[in-house]
Amino acid sequence: MTAQPNPRAGAAVKAADRAHVFHSWSAQELIDPLAVAGAEGSYFWDYEGRRYLDFTSGLVFTNLGYQHPKVVAAIQEQAATLTTFAPAFAVEARSEAARLIAERTPGDLDKIFFTNGGTEAVEHAVRMARVHTGRQKVLSAYRSYHGATAASIHLTGDPRRWANDTGAAGVVHFWAPFLYRSPFHAENERQECERALQHLEDTLVFEGPATIAAIVLESVPGTAGIMVPPPGYLAGVRALCDRYGIVLVLDEVMAGFGRTGRWFAADLFGVTPDLMTFAKGVNSGYVPLGGVAISGAIAETFARRPYPGGLTYSGHPLACAAAVATIHVMEEEGVVEHAARLGEEVFGPGLRELAERHPSVGEVRGTGVFWALELVRDRETREPLVPYNATGEDNAPMAAFAAAAKERGLWPFVNMNRTHVVPPCTITEAEAKEGLAALDEALSVADRHTTAA
Amino acid sequence: MTAQPNPRAGAAVKAADRAHVFHSWSAQELIDPLAVAGAEGSYFWDYEGRRYLDFTSGLVFTNLGYQHPKVVAAIQEQAATLTTFAPAFAVEARSEAARLIAERTPGDLDKIFFTNGGTEAVEHAVRMARVHTGRQKVLSAYRSYHGATAASIHLTGDPRRWANDTGAAGVVHFWAPFLYRSPFHAENERQECERALQHLEDTLVFEGPATIAAIVLESVPGTAGIMVPPPGYLAGVRALCDRYGIVLVLDEVMAGFGRTGRWFAADLFGVTPDLMTFAKGVNSGYVPLGGVAISGAIAETFARRPYPGGLTYSGHPLACAAAVATIHVMEEEGVVEHAARLGEEVFGPGLRELAERHPSVGEVRGTGVFWALELVRDRETREPLVPYNATGEDNAPMAAFAAAAKERGLWPFVNMNRTHVVPPCTITEAEAKEGLAALDEALSVADRHTTAA
Repeated sequence: MTAQPNPRAGAAVKAADRAHVFHSWSAQELIDPLAVAGAEGSYFWDYEGRRYLDFTSGLVFTNLGYQHPKVVAAIQEQAATLTTFAPAFAVEARSEAARLIAERTPGDLDKIFFTNGGTEAVEHAVRMARVHTGRQKVLSAYRSYHGATAASIHLTGDPRRWANDTGAAGVVHFWAPFLYRSPFHAENERQECERALQHLEDTLVFEGPATIAAIVLESVPGTAGIMVPPPGYLAGVRALCDRYGIVLVLDEVMAGFGRTGRWFAADLFGVTPDLMTFAKGVNSGYVPLGGVAISGAIAETFARRPYPGGLTYSGHPLACAAAVATIHVMEEEGVVEHAARLGEEVFGPGLRELAERHPSVGEVRGTGVFWALELVRDRETREPLVPYNATGEDNAPMAAFAAAAKERGLWPFVNMNRTHVVPPCTITEAEAKEGLAALDEALSVADRHTTAA
Repeated sequence: MTAQPNPRAGAAVKAADRAHVFHSWSAQELIDPLAVAGAEGSYFWDYEGRRYLDFTSGLVFTNLGYQHPKVVAAIQEQAATLTTFAPAFAVEARSEAARLIAERTPGDLDKIFFTNGGTEAVEHAVRMARVHTGRQKVLSAYRSYHGATAASIHLTGDPRRWANDTGAAGVVHFWAPFLYRSPFHAENERQECERALQHLEDTLVFEGPATIAAIVLESVPGTAGIMVPPPGYLAGVRALCDRYGIVLVLDEVMAGFGRTGRWFAADLFGVTPDLMTFAKGVNSGYVPLGGVAISGAIAETFARRPYPGGLTYSGHPLACAAAVATIHVMEEEGVVEHAARLGEEVFGPGLRELAERHPSVGEVRGTGVFWALELVRDRETREPLVPYNATGEDNAPMAAFAAAAKERGLWPFVNMNRTHVVPPCTITEAEAKEGLAALDEALSVADRHTTAA
């Protein structure tokens, strides 16, 4: 599955990268990007011939793995016929992608506004909510990520906001449920749920419900730690939004399109938001695409009044053709059901078994192909293995864990004191077990940094 | 060049569009999107077999026309090898696109940060400028368009900002030169240039230069009216930025990559900005792509300090492969030189000749394949043919002009009281003349709404 090693070609790619590519979220001289030669399915490989099992799905977007032949063929075919066209026209790939997505989104989310990715989807959802309600304020959760353009980075609840925080008017953060580190001192899921809803309603009441356009919430928070909300929480948020005339925006950029073992994470809870944002898994990231699924009531607001937003590549035909093919593949190959089964039979049991043996694992949580291991110095105190937002020496234990995984051919997703297990939803059971075995060994390295060592 | 008519297929595409696609900048029930069946070179056609010469290049992005075989082949090849990969890695298409772009951008703009499109490019340029200077305020021009996410829509100086204007802290608008409707009561280009620079410096001084991070300016304003700045203006802005330690961001999203008859519009004036944004023409819009070209000094700011921004699809391999092929085609086929020649020998003379005969044409301005006709009710008073931001009946004269062009097989770019002549940069002289002939007839319809009628 790997190509012949070709270190010279890799060196040229790397040299041009270092000379000319400015990388996201990085100090440009302190990074050392691996040059990647190719990828297929759940694996990628470098120019030295080293192969890695990808437990990251890129940035949690290759839900079908790399180079799925049917999606590749669909891109090639669309490129041959109509690779691009302006957004004001009706184009087959665009119409078909919208229809297929609308048929799968919950409830009456039947109109699709396409963007190029997740951050634009969040920006436009917020705009729709503001115009629809005539209100300005938007609430979002700490421990969240919503994107890096101005509105979405202000909604974000992680340190990436800090350097960008100009104190945007009308953004308020609240605490969402997270029993393992309960903001509400709860002792069980039911209590966490009740207290989180009480906290949210108190916040709404004190902010003034009539000033609030929207609550923006990841159905299952992703990069912030894959905290599957307790039963009843999302339904409770839905009820609060209904009570106070607030638009519920569920952000499914990372959780959507099979990741949780459902088409959308909202389906886990039987909740229909007013707006739902998506990207990544919609076409496995093969071509940049995102969007907002829009309820009937909000679409009606813009039936005879112009929607004040848009973009040049809204509904890009090439991106939409990839989405059409992706959705067909997901149906034909039972990818959503496979993801659910992997969660129940492989990742859930496998990761819990690792947790039993490794003192560095404080908690295992997740669903489908969407799991987090919370790594801790001490299971009793739950002190994180590294401090919040650690860098350099402070982050050494997590760096050692990641290096150990890579040495064993596993590319891990690492964020602060967590590793997320987020391989393609198409990963085979054998591949999953290969990854868990490598993770087992890498966790032994993390164990050395615990109080148990 | 057109396919067989297939009205039934067109009706299905249209029906799915109307049911499920939410369109940019539109009242959803008041639009009637044309279903497009195919496109090639400078033409596209519908399902009824009607063919249109495209004087819009989509939204001014298909600089190579539709379906250029070499770019299509490059997309197909990249799709077959590595259609997507996460941004933290070095990937050949990404490295090569960055190298080819950096080699063509002016001065020391040698690092490329890739985005999915123009608005994200502007957002990130503003962020870089703010962190680099430690200042917050950003100045931009009235009569401008910079995108539709939160930071870029606030910078925008056209009515699309209004519904989104939350009074963002730190955005100040100034007036840029536009002799035909001079904000400075100037009588000639030299005077307009001097007064515009005086106005800008006065504004800087009264805003407090030490509070200003950046001036964001389209090198040649695009959608706002293709006002080629007078000689000396951009150099004067550059000098003001140098004097006050302000970052100069030139927005070349629309003007870049051959449109003006140069690689970049900045090249027309020999000016090097500190940051330059691009999108659209970089790969003819075949795959969503944009970016920021970054000076050595600003790159140095982020050498050992993390850049606080990023996105999942930064440097998407498929988009970058299309950029590599586009740049090679532009070189091999002399597209930039062709665009310059068309401007000097075909569009400039041809449009000025139309202006002589049509009382509705108040001014012709432009360069390369980037022209605007300012349509007026009265040449003496320069009263626009329709009021600023007109809709419905108020806009009837422009609607009649557009309909007349379409009846004659020409798809025109229309914005307020202007039509822009912005076909692909690869349009042949014969096609250009065919378009000018149709424009001639459509302008006769506009003439009926003038005081001369």
